[in-house]
Amino acid sequence: MKRGINVAIQRLPGYYRYFDKLHSMEIQGVSSAALSKKIGISPSLVRKDICQFGGFGQTAYGYNVKEVRAKLGHILGVDNLRCAVMIGTGCMGHALLRYVRFDAAGFIVVAAEKVSGQTGREISGIPVLNVSELDRVIQIHRPDIAILTPSDIPVQTMARQLAKMGIRGFWNFSGEELALDEPDCFVENVDLVESLLQLSYRIAPGGEAIK
Amino acid sequence: MKRGINVAIQRLPGYYRYFDKLHSMEIQGVSSAALSKKIGISPSLVRKDICQFGGFGQTAYGYNVKEVRAKLGHILGVDNLRCAVMIGTGCMGHALLRYVRFDAAGFIVVAAEKVSGQTGREISGIPVLNVSELDRVIQIHRPDIAILTPSDIPVQTMARQLAKMGIRGFWNFSGEELALDEPDCFVENVDLVESLLQLSYRIAPGGEAIK
Repeated sequence: MKRGINVAIQRLPGYYRYFDKLHSMEIQGVSSAALSKKIGISPSLVRKDICQFGGFGQTAYGYNVKEVRAKLGHILGVDNLRCAVMIGTGCMGHALLRYVRFDAAGFIVVAAEKVSGQTGREISGIPVLNVSELDRVIQIHRPDIAILTPSDIPVQTMARQLAKMGIRGFWNFSGEELALDEPDCFVENVDLVESLLQLSYRIAPGGEAIK
Repeated sequence: MKRGINVAIQRLPGYYRYFDKLHSMEIQGVSSAALSKKIGISPSLVRKDICQFGGFGQTAYGYNVKEVRAKLGHILGVDNLRCAVMIGTGCMGHALLRYVRFDAAGFIVVAAEKVSGQTGREISGIPVLNVSELDRVIQIHRPDIAILTPSDIPVQTMARQLAKMGIRGFWNFSGEELALDEPDCFVENVDLVESLLQLSYRIAPGGEAIK
């Protein structure tokens, strides 16, 4: 759950992902009714959201997919290639490097782990550097985001150290909840159990009523 | 994004996770002000949510953590041990089996993959069965949920087959979006790029204004 974020902004990445998919399927226009069905809110709220994102007009084919996708991508910074550094390349790190399309979010990734005597190692084409040289890695690559996966360094310690080095965004898969007091730092704790509970509720007796 | 679910219900797993954490820390009461800060909505909306979940009274110490946790856990079905079957035990499957605390969501897991000649194999204590015997596996374990990880079986084909066998919940990590028309089936597509974009927006210039 996000703290105090405008709800339309919370929906923005979902809109972008949908427009991006339509764009890759060469679909040119989409109606607010179709968007409403996809996003799960009323067509009038869709129109309000889209207005808040930049006020795009609708033609007979609905919203112009190419135009809206480009504008939402710009707001999200997808068109501005940035770097993310992954800390730890254990089981979870490996899975993320293999299955998350970081390029679709406008990120290139470098990974750092405790490696000894191994240089030039790569996972899915991503260079793996030594965590003891984190200072140098960050100076070279200037990442905006750190991806924290389970590693033998406590997540709170690691995040504080990275924040001091100028990293502001923390995508936390460590399994430990992370809270940072640094005013310009933002944390996205990924809680998969919460997602599973959501599904669990929907299949429970009575849960389907709220489909 | 969930389709048309009541927003309080969307927040329910987050509340449960927080009350569960407080309970494990042996904290007995929590105020709506503290909940408000944690969940990121106003204290009055917190009171409205809690009322919708069952209407708990507040004492001088706020809500009774033990009581609310038990009630929310019951609504979510956490107190009723169920089974989930994981399809595919590649890199992502392994990571989920190692790092997701399924027991915290009230699930035991069995895994199925294309194994040949290997029986009795386990990952993190979870038995790995042969996907060719899925029928038998499902008859024995009667899972409520399938966890779909990337495997060489197309996710749509696999999900339809599982739905026919009576599985109603699909937690989809395959990377392919899954949509099912079966009226009683529910899909939770986990889109990690959407989560990354959310963080990316917050660290973008101007994004912090909506912290």
